[in-house]
Amino acid sequence: MLEDLKRAVCQANVELAACGLVTLTWGNVSGISQDRKLVVIKPSGVPYDQLQPEHLVVVDLDGQVVEGTLRPSSDTPTHVLLYKHFAGIGGITHTHSRHATMFAQARREIPCLGTTHADHFFGTVPVTRPLTAAEVAAGYERNTGQVIIERFAGLDPRTMPAVLVAGHAPFTWGKDAADSVKNSIALESVAEMAVGTWVLNPQAQLLEEYVLNKHYERKHGPNPEYGQK
Amino acid sequence: MLEDLKRAVCQANVELAACGLVTLTWGNVSGISQDRKLVVIKPSGVPYDQLQPEHLVVVDLDGQVVEGTLRPSSDTPTHVLLYKHFAGIGGITHTHSRHATMFAQARREIPCLGTTHADHFFGTVPVTRPLTAAEVAAGYERNTGQVIIERFAGLDPRTMPAVLVAGHAPFTWGKDAADSVKNSIALESVAEMAVGTWVLNPQAQLLEEYVLNKHYERKHGPNPEYGQK
Amino acid sequence: MLEDLKRAVCQANVELAACGLVTLTWGNVSGISQDRKLVVIKPSGVPYDQLQPEHLVVVDLDGQVVEGTLRPSSDTPTHVLLYKHFAGIGGITHTHSRHATMFAQARREIPCLGTTHADHFFGTVPVTRPLTAAEVAAGYERNTGQVIIERFAGLDPRTMPAVLVAGHAPFTWGKDAADSVKNSIALESVAEMAVGTWVLNPQAQLLEEYVLNKHYERKHGPNPEYGQK
Amino acid sequence: MLEDLKRAVCQANVELAACGLVTLTWGNVSGISQDRKLVVIKPSGVPYDQLQPEHLVVVDLDGQVVEGTLRPSSDTPTHVLLYKHFAGIGGITHTHSRHATMFAQARREIPCLGTTHADHFFGTVPVTRPLTAAEVAAGYERNTGQVIIERFAGLDPRTMPAVLVAGHAPFTWGKDAADSVKNSIALESVAEMAVGTWVLNPQAQLLEEYVLNKHYERKHGPNPEYGQK
Repeated sequence: MLEDLKRAVCQANVELAACGLVTLTWGNVSGISQDRKLVVIKPSGVPYDQLQPEHLVVVDLDGQVVEGTLRPSSDTPTHVLLYKHFAGIGGITHTHSRHATMFAQARREIPCLGTTHADHFFGTVPVTRPLTAAEVAAGYERNTGQVIIERFAGLDPRTMPAVLVAGHAPFTWGKDAADSVKNSIALESVAEMAVGTWVLNPQAQLLEEYVLNKHYERKHGPNPEYGQK
Repeated sequence: MLEDLKRAVCQANVELAACGLVTLTWGNVSGISQDRKLVVIKPSGVPYDQLQPEHLVVVDLDGQVVEGTLRPSSDTPTHVLLYKHFAGIGGITHTHSRHATMFAQARREIPCLGTTHADHFFGTVPVTRPLTAAEVAAGYERNTGQVIIERFAGLDPRTMPAVLVAGHAPFTWGKDAADSVKNSIALESVAEMAVGTWVLNPQAQLLEEYVLNKHYERKHGPNPEYGQK
Repeated sequence: MLEDLKRAVCQANVELAACGLVTLTWGNVSGISQDRKLVVIKPSGVPYDQLQPEHLVVVDLDGQVVEGTLRPSSDTPTHVLLYKHFAGIGGITHTHSRHATMFAQARREIPCLGTTHADHFFGTVPVTRPLTAAEVAAGYERNTGQVIIERFAGLDPRTMPAVLVAGHAPFTWGKDAADSVKNSIALESVAEMAVGTWVLNPQAQLLEEYVLNKHYERKHGPNPEYGQK
Repeated sequence: MLEDLKRAVCQANVELAACGLVTLTWGNVSGISQDRKLVVIKPSGVPYDQLQPEHLVVVDLDGQVVEGTLRPSSDTPTHVLLYKHFAGIGGITHTHSRHATMFAQARREIPCLGTTHADHFFGTVPVTRPLTAAEVAAGYERNTGQVIIERFAGLDPRTMPAVLVAGHAPFTWGKDAADSVKNSIALESVAEMAVGTWVLNPQAQLLEEYVLNKHYERKHGPNPEYGQK
């Protein structure tokens, strides 16, 4: 079942590792079926260079395994909850990529300091609040999804496809698995450049709002000028 | 038409990506024909590893497509304007390379702190002013070229083949497409070393002017001592 | 003798170099036999790309060579002493990996700032005291092991598989040679992210203790949720 | 003539580039003949991946070309002067490696902060004074050698095989060309770790002198414990 989606999600996991965003097995990509009923996700702890489409695990929106002999990523309940609440996203990537994780650990948001950021993230990349002890005890991975959703009150996940979980690491999403990987790559780069920008100028100003609008719109607006039609 | 130029510009784009200066598709190289009437440029959003000479787009100096089925880079109006105003440059490279972009985002110029800089850039690498809202609305990419040209009043683009656009990223140029890529590589390295130099010594002094002159002249002067005759 | 162990330790040394944790020949991996009587270790100063299982040296728990024509790593007395005192560890890795070594040189411990750390190290990664002149004179490498053991009074080497030797560099260990290499990789990544976290936020807080417990337990507890059964 | 030396120096130049210490063509390695009358050096501006032993240039100790159709490195007068004054060195490497160059630009010496440093450099890596305008005018490259020699008054080039030229970049040397490349690799690593050590602890202390002595001696003393006999 879902052979095309498995192939796409497998390929996205392999690309994620090839891009240098993953150390050891600290990362996973998932994708959701077109009817939004089933999620295909990386099995837990399996090295990327051995990953084959048939290793991927299919789970339903309660996180129950529907197909697959391997255990799904331990982060599966987070992925599933995000699919449930963020209409229109087709893929999710979780990494511990170095600079984005520095921001998550520092519990600082990433403001838009330049057009590289504006090309991918429409405004400040948010950080969640930390989970409470009760939330960790009652379902850590599910509640990780819950604090992300809570943080996105008033934010549009389609124009802000990334979040930093406080003390943990980033999640990104996109229209499909490959697109969510692209956003992880963009986030890591934007995070690295933000660190260096502040080293050079601790008072670095935000990108002018009209430039942010222009860059985001020319790439993601209804009539994009970027890429091929 | 322009088969040799297309091959050279294609090769320069591929090299740019191979040098690690480009993330995703954030970069493009162009070259101008010998009669300075036509510009060959990368198509927008096409991955470097799939780029073939026949994909390149030919535009005139008004930025109108003369040949090619793909859309040219969204930065085309910037390239075209620079070719019009900077006599003698044959190639232009735009990247979001990490350390040069940090300077652009910090809106700090890169002073000459050592001979590596002096070997390529004759003095301080300048930053433009930000564009106004009206300039962004009236033709963002063209006006990006305009603020570069404005910043170069009193500067010679032949001895200063690089600029940082405030809040955005660098542009470099050279005698041809390959040479403009070399200047992007040099700029990124010089920017990275400047960040570290200031971490080690926030009061780091400028390179002595007579050493700057010596290094620049021995490589780019009328009678260079560097390289082969 | 010990052909399987030699192959495993050889492979772990090769992987260590492949992971970018080693410059020149600054690193070595060892493993101990199942009866805990013999240690297999890298020969001193031999490049990793030429290393074959038959080059590995077998020493006893007094550090005396039992088999092998090459000299063992100069750090052998440190490895041997750790095997004697840390029950249950099967492999040891020593590197001068860049960020972990920065911490060792700065003589700062690495507190748990995030879940990446919590997934591998149960609390603060400790730094030893410096050796005295008398200790250096009386058996430098053996006493390097001694100050590590002294520092671990009250610490459990099974939940804290890493140490920073003051002014020197890290040692990590694990259930076998390959596992000790993984811990070196994790330590280097955690160290790099800690440096950046403090650049972003010098007052960055510790990870909540209940999150540390959760992450460590779900990976290393009696009933792990991570990886495959 | 000098076919073996040419092969060794060619190979050392190729390795230098392979180690990531060189950007564009910013680096060169030379070696001296056993009778110390002729120096083999990289030709100026030739890419490393095209370098063949027959491209190397042979010069005498006045820097005059004795054999070869290509121009020697513009740094040849510096190399030649060092060979004349530093008895016993057989190879010299010049790079603009990033972190060592940051120190040269910051005009800060690299004190011994750890055993990695002690394994290769017996004490503080020195910085030269800047050249005067008159020295630059009268023979820049030769006087670069002169200020290095001046700075080494009271220092032994055999135990301190590296120098930082103020505002410029490092030179290293060794018993032959390959050994001088190793010292460039070690210097770059030591420089990078020193930057990070100071970020973590601006008051980081020097390595205890008795540890410096122990590490240097066990590797370079009359009876080394490191490597194979």
